[in-house]
Amino acid sequence: MYSVTVRDHVMIAHSFTGQVFGPAQRLHGATFVVDVELKRPSLDADGIVVDIGKASDTLRQLLADINYRNLDEVPAFAGRNTTTEFLARVVFDRLVAAIQRGDLGPGARDIDTIRVTLHESHVASASFEGRVSDPA
Amino acid sequence: MYSVTVRDHVMIAHSFTGQVFGPAQRLHGATFVVDVELKRPSLDADGIVVDIGKASDTLRQLLADINYRNLDEVPAFAGRNTTTEFLARVVFDRLVAAIQRGDLGPGARDIDTIRVTLHESHVASASFEGRVSDPA
Amino acid sequence: MYSVTVRDHVMIAHSFTGQVFGPAQRLHGATFVVDVELKRPSLDADGIVVDIGKASDTLRQLLADINYRNLDEVPAFAGRNTTTEFLARVVFDRLVAAIQRGDLGPGARDIDTIRVTLHESHVASASFEGRVSDPA
Amino acid sequence: MYSVTVRDHVMIAHSFTGQVFGPAQRLHGATFVVDVELKRPSLDADGIVVDIGKASDTLRQLLADINYRNLDEVPAFAGRNTTTEFLARVVFDRLVAAIQRGDLGPGARDIDTIRVTLHESHVASASFEGRVSDPA
Amino acid sequence: MYSVTVRDHVMIAHSFTGQVFGPAQRLHGATFVVDVELKRPSLDADGIVVDIGKASDTLRQLLADINYRNLDEVPAFAGRNTTTEFLARVVFDRLVAAIQRGDLGPGARDIDTIRVTLHESHVASASFEGRVSDPA
Amino acid sequence: MYSVTVRDHVMIAHSFTGQVFGPAQRLHGATFVVDVELKRPSLDADGIVVDIGKASDTLRQLLADINYRNLDEVPAFAGRNTTTEFLARVVFDRLVAAIQRGDLGPGARDIDTIRVTLHESHVASASFEGRVSDPA
Repeated sequence: MYSVTVRDHVMIAHSFTGQVFGPAQRLHGATFVVDVELKRPSLDADGIVVDIGKASDTLRQLLADINYRNLDEVPAFAGRNTTTEFLARVVFDRLVAAIQRGDLGPGARDIDTIRVTLHESHVASASFEGRVSDPA
Repeated sequence: MYSVTVRDHVMIAHSFTGQVFGPAQRLHGATFVVDVELKRPSLDADGIVVDIGKASDTLRQLLADINYRNLDEVPAFAGRNTTTEFLARVVFDRLVAAIQRGDLGPGARDIDTIRVTLHESHVASASFEGRVSDPA
Repeated sequence: MYSVTVRDHVMIAHSFTGQVFGPAQRLHGATFVVDVELKRPSLDADGIVVDIGKASDTLRQLLADINYRNLDEVPAFAGRNTTTEFLARVVFDRLVAAIQRGDLGPGARDIDTIRVTLHESHVASASFEGRVSDPA
Repeated sequence: MYSVTVRDHVMIAHSFTGQVFGPAQRLHGATFVVDVELKRPSLDADGIVVDIGKASDTLRQLLADINYRNLDEVPAFAGRNTTTEFLARVVFDRLVAAIQRGDLGPGARDIDTIRVTLHESHVASASFEGRVSDPA
Repeated sequence: MYSVTVRDHVMIAHSFTGQVFGPAQRLHGATFVVDVELKRPSLDADGIVVDIGKASDTLRQLLADINYRNLDEVPAFAGRNTTTEFLARVVFDRLVAAIQRGDLGPGARDIDTIRVTLHESHVASASFEGRVSDPA
Repeated sequence: MYSVTVRDHVMIAHSFTGQVFGPAQRLHGATFVVDVELKRPSLDADGIVVDIGKASDTLRQLLADINYRNLDEVPAFAGRNTTTEFLARVVFDRLVAAIQRGDLGPGARDIDTIRVTLHESHVASASFEGRVSDPA
């Protein structure tokens, strides 16, 4: 299996609901350094997994939607804890939609699996990995 | 598959038995930066893989047992080479026991797979990955 | 010159005032990975710059004050932009006060210079470096 | 599954053919920091995945072949785009051959899977992962 | 002293002249991960060292000039070895010119010192640090 | 000021004397990732700070002397706590001697300042920086 990984980041505010979160129930924030790994079993005719420029641009645009935001006020996340693992899934789902729209180019439709990792500090991160063909 | 990764470290002394180890047959030591990745197929009702506070505390306590020790003198490791890969398995086994005792909270019983990575330098690391349900 | 560096982190929300900040005028947040470097010209009788345990504990307590907070609501920062460089200075000033109170042990009074670096992402950081003896 | 990872690097020049590459169609270059992860289900009698000295030496020799080269002039790559993902596969294939020749020691024949990752910058990398037993 | 650091990268080909370079006399290449640290003794009215957006954009444009190039063919470098330390100075000189042109905003004229570091691999880097007011 | 930095590592055992060290009074160990930064005000005729091959080889040989050792048994360190900051100075002193012997080539005699940093974990490091011309 081949893969390509690109990195970007977002800076957001949010708070969590639930005793398990302790002081993180207060409004606070995070920088998420986001790694997106795109996997497919074979390379295309150009010898690549994906157009890395398109992959980076798509990731940047997708993150722009939540960047410099208070996620507690984003309607799409109403009633949800925007935990690191939850956000990894959000990025995954939106990448799958972008691939299906053709944003990463026609060859990207052969991408089999995507792993999204959000690093929230030097000691903690969360990931979601799934197949592109699985329904969200 | 979702995952959460937490990081901590230990500083130990040890020596190895066997010609393959060359100068590492002498008493020496290592800092192991330890990454523990906990994986499960779905999030709990709070939107998390695990209580990250409990996971970090459990890892810290588990590592305290070997931290600032000469592993050559730890009875549990008698007759074994405490290689990086062997210690990754030790951490895995002890985490599985901690989950089964409930140390990571009741929800942690849904954790499916654990990957433990020990970084011994900027150029070398070792891992053990296994399913929680497999007998040690 | 000798130095010792310890690392910790905080996760905060804040917003900025001023056109120069663009979208960062909105409420957002950041993880700051904080490196504190303590410098002195000679080692103490134990062969150290500082009791690294006391230095780490002091840093943790000092950061706890702002951790998981919306800095826009912290009275001490009223009317100020809590930029990364501003916060580096805040950490510096509080460390100097902690040294002068003796929190880092009596030997720490020989610390000459402190450099505080806050990493806000994988591509940006800010620092403040000053002498302990200079008036804040 | 156990694994051991070793790291080295190469510095090469090359150019790409195909509009998808944009300015990278010009002759340019890259540092590739190469991580090789060797996986097997159980440890050998010494308690290791592989002789890490032999693994590091083999990787170094294998990379020496392309290090400080213009890959556009390497006959083995004629007519191919030497993309990061393509080169990850090249390193994989050559490691498999080295294992089969016995360069990593007799125990290394139990290595099941190899993952090769080439980091081309702080924001991009590519990998190839495959089983040792699969025909190249 | 306050500072802000921004990071970007370039991918170039080049060769060196001189026996001291050994195999690096051949045409090869490098990824340089570039850190630019801008220092000044006090913050401006907004509480910043520099408009970090302008600093990042300026660095990107400045690097675009050499990115995806064979430096052996760049007229400005004719007859020079484009070593990592030499290129750190080139980036410094061009940043000073950009500041003097006002590209980083009027406040950036208070920047006192710039340190440019080029990381050429995980084990080697080079820097140039100088005062903005010194003649190039 | 120009500089070049090279990185290597050692793995050692040791123990400390003094209550301030707490559990580190027991025999334990560390991996030290060692960064050596060599500084000089101008480049030599080849456009370099130092022959990076010679610098790396010298560092490797110098570290080989303590690598895979129990520092408590090294005669040169008898009666001393081999703390990270102390060892940074040891590496500095031995590099100065190597430069004076000509091990880094004749041009290296123009190196003005050396900064040695030993990273003992992902959260702690120590440094010694001094001028080559200062008596040890």
